[in-house]
Amino acid sequence: MNSTIETILNHRSIRKFKKEKLSTEQIQLLVKSAQQASTSSHVMAYTIIGITDEKIKKALYEVSGHRHVVDNGHLFIFCGDLHRVQLRATESEKNSMAETIESTEQFIVTIIDAALASQNLAIAAESLGLGICYLGSLRNNINAFSSILNLPDHAIPLFGIAVGYPDQQPELKPRLPMEAVYHENTYKADELQIPLLQTFDEEMKAYYKNRSTNKREDTWKQQMIKKYNNSTRMDVSAFVQSKNLNKR
Amino acid sequence: MNSTIETILNHRSIRKFKKEKLSTEQIQLLVKSAQQASTSSHVMAYTIIGITDEKIKKALYEVSGHRHVVDNGHLFIFCGDLHRVQLRATESEKNSMAETIESTEQFIVTIIDAALASQNLAIAAESLGLGICYLGSLRNNINAFSSILNLPDHAIPLFGIAVGYPDQQPELKPRLPMEAVYHENTYKADELQIPLLQTFDEEMKAYYKNRSTNKREDTWKQQMIKKYNNSTRMDVSAFVQSKNLNKR
Repeated sequence: MNSTIETILNHRSIRKFKKEKLSTEQIQLLVKSAQQASTSSHVMAYTIIGITDEKIKKALYEVSGHRHVVDNGHLFIFCGDLHRVQLRATESEKNSMAETIESTEQFIVTIIDAALASQNLAIAAESLGLGICYLGSLRNNINAFSSILNLPDHAIPLFGIAVGYPDQQPELKPRLPMEAVYHENTYKADELQIPLLQTFDEEMKAYYKNRSTNKREDTWKQQMIKKYNNSTRMDVSAFVQSKNLNKR
Repeated sequence: MNSTIETILNHRSIRKFKKEKLSTEQIQLLVKSAQQASTSSHVMAYTIIGITDEKIKKALYEVSGHRHVVDNGHLFIFCGDLHRVQLRATESEKNSMAETIESTEQFIVTIIDAALASQNLAIAAESLGLGICYLGSLRNNINAFSSILNLPDHAIPLFGIAVGYPDQQPELKPRLPMEAVYHENTYKADELQIPLLQTFDEEMKAYYKNRSTNKREDTWKQQMIKKYNNSTRMDVSAFVQSKNLNKR
């Protein structure tokens, strides 16, 4: 154990921040940390957009519905970006690059690159005593999310991270038993996973019953069944293809 | 600056490891670190497979072509996994969950969840003095990659991470200028990005010319044009859909 691993294991999402803004130095240190993440073939297939304009924050809040989109120390938006790799190419080169850029493989690359960078930023922020919350809710209306930021072809917005000085201290949320998530040599058979999930549901039931706020009767199983019975964000597929990604 | 950010900023991929294996305690601490990453709606949509069986390592090496798939302190494979969320559902519930699970939106979720967990593992490993290398090359034959690990429907292999005690100390590889990657409030216009990429190419040219091994004449622009003119991994799309993901 060391202070880095302590920071990692101490992660909880923070949804209420003090009014204090991040300094320019802090923002730059966080972005620099993001940039040092591993990247597929040196592509660096992401763009980070920092939001300071209150009008833009408000427009993003209308998409997400979460107050911490507006009320935070700084808001970072992570975008998958395969536009940049073409910027210095000739028109003819751009045309011949399109088939690969528009593949599902490169769609995977751009999401992974953005996510690795974002998690570096998250850990760096938490190591400075800041709190963070990922905002996938900005995909509730991915067309609006993208329009607000004026993204070009071959670039899509993925999620935000709200960062700031924590004004709450929620309990750590349980994770699946390690044996459910970590398999050895081959994918674990269903009948070996199911008892682990049953045990986890007992733990989650106790967690929801006993936590300090928003107590309820719930289990992981019930949450998953409810979540996936509710078809949401079915417009993401068409949006992504309209940006000429994930096409083949 | 603190030791966590120092670790993050000191990242370089390590492709040559000493023979020493990771201990069970180290592996568990790394997996625990991975598990504490943020996850969309508590789905934890990933599975990590640790490879110790030499036959499996050899089969994966044949897919990747990189020796550090075999020669490492431990090999972790990260999979996107939307199979687990259905394990305790009835057949009828499973059927009604399928439309959402098979959406592009949930394909994005599973990739992000896996990537955030993996980056926690990478940073935790580096904080312990270990080196890491991401292995996207395992997608060179994603059908074989998946078959070797026996992945079920709604689960796909994404990448590996080789971890171990470093037996080399490569130079830090330059990253794009911060102003190219970090935009403010809106996506930066092409004409503002292009001069930054020109400057970066001068930096990359000097880096490739002067580094201690594998010197060459190259720039980022040339690499990107070459890479995207070479259509590779075009089978990923059909494979993902054969696993009933990214379908709608």
